[in-house]
Amino acid sequence: MRALIYDGDLRLDEAASQPVPTGDEVLLKIRRAGICNTDLELVEGMYGFSGILGHEFVAEVADGPADWIGRRVVGEINVVCGGCDFCQADVPSQCRHRRAVGIHDYPGAFAEYMPLPLRNLYPVPDSVSDDAAVFTEPLAAALQVLEAVQISPRDRVVVLGVGKLGMLVAQVLKLTGADVTGVVRRQKQADLLRQWGITASAIDDLESEQAQVVVDCTGQAQGFADALRLVRSRGTIVLKSTYHGTPQADLTQVAVREIRVVGSRCGPFPAALRLLERRLVDVESLVDARYPFWDALNAFGHAQKPGALKVLLYF
Amino acid sequence: MRALIYDGDLRLDEAASQPVPTGDEVLLKIRRAGICNTDLELVEGMYGFSGILGHEFVAEVADGPADWIGRRVVGEINVVCGGCDFCQADVPSQCRHRRAVGIHDYPGAFAEYMPLPLRNLYPVPDSVSDDAAVFTEPLAAALQVLEAVQISPRDRVVVLGVGKLGMLVAQVLKLTGADVTGVVRRQKQADLLRQWGITASAIDDLESEQAQVVVDCTGQAQGFADALRLVRSRGTIVLKSTYHGTPQADLTQVAVREIRVVGSRCGPFPAALRLLERRLVDVESLVDARYPFWDALNAFGHAQKPGALKVLLYF
Repeated sequence: MRALIYDGDLRLDEAASQPVPTGDEVLLKIRRAGICNTDLELVEGMYGFSGILGHEFVAEVADGPADWIGRRVVGEINVVCGGCDFCQADVPSQCRHRRAVGIHDYPGAFAEYMPLPLRNLYPVPDSVSDDAAVFTEPLAAALQVLEAVQISPRDRVVVLGVGKLGMLVAQVLKLTGADVTGVVRRQKQADLLRQWGITASAIDDLESEQAQVVVDCTGQAQGFADALRLVRSRGTIVLKSTYHGTPQADLTQVAVREIRVVGSRCGPFPAALRLLERRLVDVESLVDARYPFWDALNAFGHAQKPGALKVLLYF
Repeated sequence: MRALIYDGDLRLDEAASQPVPTGDEVLLKIRRAGICNTDLELVEGMYGFSGILGHEFVAEVADGPADWIGRRVVGEINVVCGGCDFCQADVPSQCRHRRAVGIHDYPGAFAEYMPLPLRNLYPVPDSVSDDAAVFTEPLAAALQVLEAVQISPRDRVVVLGVGKLGMLVAQVLKLTGADVTGVVRRQKQADLLRQWGITASAIDDLESEQAQVVVDCTGQAQGFADALRLVRSRGTIVLKSTYHGTPQADLTQVAVREIRVVGSRCGPFPAALRLLERRLVDVESLVDARYPFWDALNAFGHAQKPGALKVLLYF
């Protein structure tokens, strides 16, 4: 089968072995996939992954239990042990032995076929298009912000880094009724946010120490520094991205101003699918380009351009 | 009056002006004071303070309302505006215009007399000795850990940096019934902890990712790195100290492992006084030395020795 492989170089392998499901795995035939910032970091060698990339996808079940075959599905990316303290406490996303689809020790979705444990699958409602369904995973990650911090309509919330993920985070926060501002650097970002009724602002136009919650989606040390400047004392900074290297961080301010810094990772798929079904979040506007899978290298090139939003791969 | 001044140099001024209370301030005659790590940092020029040092004290009211005169008191260190959003929300410790006794823009307690607003005062119960009462402020700060994070008897808690403040934090955490371990580097630390029924351990003997809560009292980048290693995913790191410089911090781990990092500063004086009155915390064992105030420079020299615990000044 055709697969997009990273093993130091990024290349399209036309003769990759088709996966053979084992244990509780089913075989998925990928319909559509999305390129995430994590994929861009992986091909910079950031996480030491080698193999088939890709973890945002919609697929159909090609082989598995009879009542699943042919169903259109999305899938959680954490492949877990089921036996550790986190799995037993129903926090599989923090499984101590987890693998992650296309990220860590498990093949990804940029391939014609991929395996996945049946427990990871969620059927996609008919009214949710393939393009929209690809956003289930990042939308779930955006929703995880609301698991990390309680947000009330009284709160002033700032989202730093309104790229692919930040745009979803801003929309999800808007649902709470809070006063949400996205920090923009490009006209395209401002236009999108305003179309959803979200305030767009340049970083320098925001007052210091006024936000109850700041969500940092930048992955940059400067983003954390900006978050510290914007958040009120006793407020919360949600870390929604991994950071390049080991940034310097003013932990003294965190201590003295009694700030909470909360990490946030994978989120709830059922809630994400429900929001897509009810069209409470606009994901179509986030699609920058669609490429056939055979042209995946050019799709990656597109996704790497500064300011690019979501690039989809069509199978 | 005699006062210990820092203005680039640390010196005993034998002819400092006696303060004249204004507004709602009363005049306090200091009975006893304690040297805190913050004082040691101030005389390294860390916070740009210039003036009379000292914020841990017990005093008697020398001038003020008739029913307060002669009363033995301790006092909160934040001198606040009363009008900002934090004051009005009953969080005066985060007042946007706060000054801090002997730390920021307000004279300190290493002097024969000091002013303080009446609202900052708490009478000391008769059964609490002067030596013990000096610990009210740091004990309150230790208790603030319990405001930042809910700790249950099921939890495994680690305290990093069991110096003057860490020893109080460890004792306070022990009250919750949690499994508390203090990370020690000296035999004296281990002996004290064990005498209170608290586990003492070298850092290298502790397993990774097993503690629900880690309290970092080290003020060092390495302390935060150790805390990240010890804390479970979804666990909490409480920052109880200010840090030297701007440390590097692995924020990616915070994000991916969904860790909470919570700053903690000044705490509740009434609770601290109650614990001292009921002898639920042993502070006497933390006194390393007592110096007459005229010998304050030698007292500072003692306090600066590695491993020194509390040094008291007698007036």
